[in-house]
Amino acid sequence: MEAKADGTMARAGLLTTRRGVVKTPVFMPVGTQGTVKGLSSDELDQAGAGIILANTYHLYLRPGHDVIREAGGLHAFMNWDGGILTDSGGFQVASLAGLREITEDGVIFTSHIDGSTHFLGPEAAVAIQEALGADIIMAFDECVRYPASYDYVEAANIRTVKWAGRCKEAKTRKDQALFGIVQGGVFPDLREESAKALVEIGFPGYAIGGLSVGEPKDEMLVALESAIAHLPEDKPRYLMGVGTPWDFVEGVARGVDMFDCVLPTRVARHGTAFTARGKIIVRDKPYERDFSPLDPLCDCMVCRNYTRAYLRHLIRAKEMLGARLLSYHNVYFFIKFMHTIRSAIVNGTFREFREEFHRLCGTTEE
Amino acid sequence: MEAKADGTMARAGLLTTRRGVVKTPVFMPVGTQGTVKGLSSDELDQAGAGIILANTYHLYLRPGHDVIREAGGLHAFMNWDGGILTDSGGFQVASLAGLREITEDGVIFTSHIDGSTHFLGPEAAVAIQEALGADIIMAFDECVRYPASYDYVEAANIRTVKWAGRCKEAKTRKDQALFGIVQGGVFPDLREESAKALVEIGFPGYAIGGLSVGEPKDEMLVALESAIAHLPEDKPRYLMGVGTPWDFVEGVARGVDMFDCVLPTRVARHGTAFTARGKIIVRDKPYERDFSPLDPLCDCMVCRNYTRAYLRHLIRAKEMLGARLLSYHNVYFFIKFMHTIRSAIVNGTFREFREEFHRLCGTTEE
Repeated sequence: MEAKADGTMARAGLLTTRRGVVKTPVFMPVGTQGTVKGLSSDELDQAGAGIILANTYHLYLRPGHDVIREAGGLHAFMNWDGGILTDSGGFQVASLAGLREITEDGVIFTSHIDGSTHFLGPEAAVAIQEALGADIIMAFDECVRYPASYDYVEAANIRTVKWAGRCKEAKTRKDQALFGIVQGGVFPDLREESAKALVEIGFPGYAIGGLSVGEPKDEMLVALESAIAHLPEDKPRYLMGVGTPWDFVEGVARGVDMFDCVLPTRVARHGTAFTARGKIIVRDKPYERDFSPLDPLCDCMVCRNYTRAYLRHLIRAKEMLGARLLSYHNVYFFIKFMHTIRSAIVNGTFREFREEFHRLCGTTEE
Repeated sequence: MEAKADGTMARAGLLTTRRGVVKTPVFMPVGTQGTVKGLSSDELDQAGAGIILANTYHLYLRPGHDVIREAGGLHAFMNWDGGILTDSGGFQVASLAGLREITEDGVIFTSHIDGSTHFLGPEAAVAIQEALGADIIMAFDECVRYPASYDYVEAANIRTVKWAGRCKEAKTRKDQALFGIVQGGVFPDLREESAKALVEIGFPGYAIGGLSVGEPKDEMLVALESAIAHLPEDKPRYLMGVGTPWDFVEGVARGVDMFDCVLPTRVARHGTAFTARGKIIVRDKPYERDFSPLDPLCDCMVCRNYTRAYLRHLIRAKEMLGARLLSYHNVYFFIKFMHTIRSAIVNGTFREFREEFHRLCGTTEE
């Protein structure tokens, strides 16, 4: 821990993996299929990404984890020297795939690519992640949809904790860190139970999963607080699949160290850019003859070289370069935004930063 | 002229525009909509592109040449410091657009984007190209489809020559070079007539248009030879919209200095790569576990950093990065291939190079 912010739970830390040290809080760009959509590994590095996320479910189905193992692991496969975290597939089998059956052993599902039937459970998820060779791997969990009944979430919670223990048992590689995932939906007592049970098993880091899946923001924050209150101070905390700059500020204020989200690249492909003054939809008419950079306060490669008018043209003409350049800018913006948050924590100005952010962006705006 | 190859009409020259000097023979990557699909302007530069082509028809329709003029011209708009050549729109109104009517004044056509009606003639084509601000602009021509009757091609030929004269009249900018376009279909005497008439008007460079539109290769070569025989030695010759490495070798052997083609980027998007040993379809199964570079003899950024297995995965997963990396490699390959041709001319080994090329690739293979 380098610094903590007075009056909030925000903290600046260092996350150490075998790839080196990453400063936290950190934003991890999402490289679902072994590529952060539109960006080369060189560009990820230029944008300041220290660690990225890749999806076990997708890579298991295509190209297959055995292909990636043969390539020398995902780092070698995608030519990326930074850190990699793989999720466990739990979220995808519950959302993207055709979910067939959940048993105490794991999940039977059908591929979203070709409809073929597959099984994923704690042991398989660990084996696949060991083949992929990420620096941080995640325990296999059941990610419950929102809304769900208290009883269902409680039952799923018990399964997820059992599975976490089995993942720890199944793990054979010493050079990967396995994180547990706190579930429990929007129920504070179930979040508490889940956190306590996982801490009892013991992991080098803890994720909070199953949030930002449709629940109201205030319920998300309560669930998050309930989980974090029972997680150890000296281990990294990772809020999965979240979110917006607003979420980062509020997550960090509640003690989160790591975030991942597809948002910057997804909205980029539809022509939306994040800027210091909020989002702009650059494909819109007002930018037709706007020859200024996307974000005049940004020093990224895109803002130094290209104008809003050109980017608007590329997006409207469905040119690949448009999605690519906006993706780069947005990923850069998210990473830099997290650097700014960290500096504020280190400098003891996080509270002022948070107030200023809410003043500029509105308290609930994304 | 730097060098000529003994026994062929191949020549190594220097093309001078206000942007600097480009060594010929040269391959111009195609940036139809103000972007070479998938590549940034930095990457074009890294790949060794000295001059690129952009399409007047497309940029006139979207974003509009007035927007590009306001941006400071196409170079500023797309952040490209190298040379730019714009075509006249003649080919596109005859192929891509809905052609409505050809008169002595020009062509009425409908937009392929929204079906709106437009007019393009010699004066308008020059005015648009002056707004775009390319270094080399093209005379407005009628590009006749193949097959067409002798009588029709002859009538179109007469119009194209008249239009070329009107383009020269209409031109007001002194810093752009206007090239005439030889037409005449596959009829040697019409090619000869067209070339002679254009030379009489007088241009700083001459293009050969209306080839590679479906005619057999031998007819294309005869038409090309018939045109070039009547073009001056001391002016650049540009074979429009052609072609493959085979076409480059045979075009250069017949005295062509400039080529453009969408081929390298188009086939890249479908997973095909050019290599020193011929084309490979990297999306195919044999490359699933092939961890060697696309082309072991290539030193481009893609071949230094990524494997066939990874590129295959990206293409199959429809990831933008796949199309982007293959496009880069193919453009690099085409540019480098032309450098190799030029070196052979300068070193006096072009005949051997040509023989070796045909031995490796077959005499009519692409």
